[in-house]
Amino acid sequence: MEIAQSLQQIQSSYIREILSAASDKNVISLAGGLPDAKTFPIELMKPTLESLADMPEVFQYGSTAGYGPLLTHLTKRFQLPDNHSVMVCTGSQQGLDLIARAYVNPGDTVVMEAPSYLGAMQVFGLVQANMVTVSQTELGPDLKQLEQCFKEQSPKMFYAVPDFHNPTGVCWAIETRKKVAQLCIDYGVALIEDAPYRELRFSGEAIDLVSDFCPDNSIVLRSFSKIASPGLRLGAVSGKLSYLEPMIKVKQGADLHSSVPMQALLLGLLENDNFDQHIDNIRALYKQRYQKLYSELESKLPKNCELKSVDGGMFVWLTLPTCDTFDLAKVLLSKGVAVVPSPVFYPNADSAEAALRLNFTNSTLEELEKAVDCLAAELKEFLGK
Amino acid sequence: MEIAQSLQQIQSSYIREILSAASDKNVISLAGGLPDAKTFPIELMKPTLESLADMPEVFQYGSTAGYGPLLTHLTKRFQLPDNHSVMVCTGSQQGLDLIARAYVNPGDTVVMEAPSYLGAMQVFGLVQANMVTVSQTELGPDLKQLEQCFKEQSPKMFYAVPDFHNPTGVCWAIETRKKVAQLCIDYGVALIEDAPYRELRFSGEAIDLVSDFCPDNSIVLRSFSKIASPGLRLGAVSGKLSYLEPMIKVKQGADLHSSVPMQALLLGLLENDNFDQHIDNIRALYKQRYQKLYSELESKLPKNCELKSVDGGMFVWLTLPTCDTFDLAKVLLSKGVAVVPSPVFYPNADSAEAALRLNFTNSTLEELEKAVDCLAAELKEFLGK
Repeated sequence: MEIAQSLQQIQSSYIREILSAASDKNVISLAGGLPDAKTFPIELMKPTLESLADMPEVFQYGSTAGYGPLLTHLTKRFQLPDNHSVMVCTGSQQGLDLIARAYVNPGDTVVMEAPSYLGAMQVFGLVQANMVTVSQTELGPDLKQLEQCFKEQSPKMFYAVPDFHNPTGVCWAIETRKKVAQLCIDYGVALIEDAPYRELRFSGEAIDLVSDFCPDNSIVLRSFSKIASPGLRLGAVSGKLSYLEPMIKVKQGADLHSSVPMQALLLGLLENDNFDQHIDNIRALYKQRYQKLYSELESKLPKNCELKSVDGGMFVWLTLPTCDTFDLAKVLLSKGVAVVPSPVFYPNADSAEAALRLNFTNSTLEELEKAVDCLAAELKEFLGK
Repeated sequence: MEIAQSLQQIQSSYIREILSAASDKNVISLAGGLPDAKTFPIELMKPTLESLADMPEVFQYGSTAGYGPLLTHLTKRFQLPDNHSVMVCTGSQQGLDLIARAYVNPGDTVVMEAPSYLGAMQVFGLVQANMVTVSQTELGPDLKQLEQCFKEQSPKMFYAVPDFHNPTGVCWAIETRKKVAQLCIDYGVALIEDAPYRELRFSGEAIDLVSDFCPDNSIVLRSFSKIASPGLRLGAVSGKLSYLEPMIKVKQGADLHSSVPMQALLLGLLENDNFDQHIDNIRALYKQRYQKLYSELESKLPKNCELKSVDGGMFVWLTLPTCDTFDLAKVLLSKGVAVVPSPVFYPNADSAEAALRLNFTNSTLEELEKAVDCLAAELKEFLGK
């Protein structure tokens, strides 16, 4: 049976291939985007796990928008404006997919940062969007490029990860946020604000969401994979009800609703008195690992490599002199370290700057040190070629 | 933001509207397709629910195709041919959505039975398929029409529910199954065999799957919503690996994977020694309810209404003299009984025969009797008009 045309352009995710190679126990993986399994708040989930058997209603069909008590909780937690609603998705990845399916026609222009989140490129690719990118600066997207793009290409939406961007770790400055919001309003572009890493800030103060400055032009995606557990597959989407309604319609066909026992479990966790402490613990752990990775890289890397510091999230972005980063990643893998080469994060791989994405959340301090030793030695060898 | 063109033709499911009206406690609902919540095997799930806290691996990201131990179990349970694989979906509804997204281009012809499953019409509508229907007989689809349609329209796939069809309850005869399989092979049409009600047989002997006669031309969808719990949102799809691979690719973008704790929970249930007994209990309960509904209808209905007997599943189909079944359903709802009028089950509502779908799995014997009293009285009144 011939596959659909929309699928013919989609590459199987390179990340999944490298992840599968990286699952070898002799490989230290800085390639994935996995939280450390030891941080999962299983103890805090235990009371709800044990009481699910007394909640027969969660085993029946549920509402497409989500489990009522969880929706009520999330509305408060996210301090949503009165005219906004929230829906639960099977991971925020599904939220993104529903946005693409509900709103994007083949050929419609979607603006993204370059580099950008792989999973977003996948879903916008599936709906055959015209993906247009703007460069990233250390303060967020290049505002001139963004305005020019809004003006000349009349895009339908701007997809962005303003907090601890995947893959670069960049966190947008407050001024950039305000300006982007204003541009979205001025040019009638919907902002899709993806915030999976927002709670993983380990330095500095939280900055307002971009969508706080253009709430009625925005859809916000949130993940519980980083602060609770990815296995549950639960995320949330919020925005004006008129924005969510078409997505709920698509979700009806996509999976009817997300698992109700999992939604009840998440609610129990979010309401647990120790949940905030749990997030603090994750932040402290990831801060320690980040600092270890950063200091090791700073002291051992060749001088022509550029490292950017981050205030949270799961990744650092290591910029290199022009080289074949796929080749480099292969060599590193053969030496026992998995990393992700930059071109996979660009809709147009040819425009990629040479760089590597390094994850620091799922390796111990010892592993990070060992990985940097290998990385530094191989980089000297490889770039010296 | 303007919604995608693919969504502009999709009606919000009438069923969901009527279900929401039917949730009124004073209404007896024969409208839904809900299993009786009292049948959920929560006791059999309890041991796994309590041990999930000791399985940290289920809280991490999982494989897109499904939780390994569950896939191994399902391969054996379904006695799959050596060259076939199975993948887990977020409900079999997602399996159907993935098939549509992986294979159907706008305008591609998909053949369905008329009437047909609403959720299938939704997903094929979303990919803008050209839905062509063939009539149903008591033995399955009209074979002449089907062959003519295969010959003249070169469809990509034939979507069918051969076991206790939703909405009609029809179970295809063995000869029909063999002939349909042969037609699929002869004309190179993929068979999409949807079998959510297969285990709910309460009379007669199980008949081979249609796909048993054309395994390499088939994709089979199975549901755990009717025999385990719909809240979990787990279904399975099986077929040649080359058929599943594009669907796995789409699922990566759709939700990465289905909830792993739910998959572990389902595995524990399927492996429980008392699970077969549990299915026997459901069958016995639904048989009793079906027999009550059928005998009540037979003795009380006006003579010009035609009732078809069923050997399993969740529905009976009541054919009426030509009338406005939407009007009838509204009148019945105002009298406290919810039913679904036939036109919603036809891609082309104008071609619908006048009928009602009646569910018997989620009402007590007393409720069924009361509902039939109301139905019979209103039908006499309504058809007498």
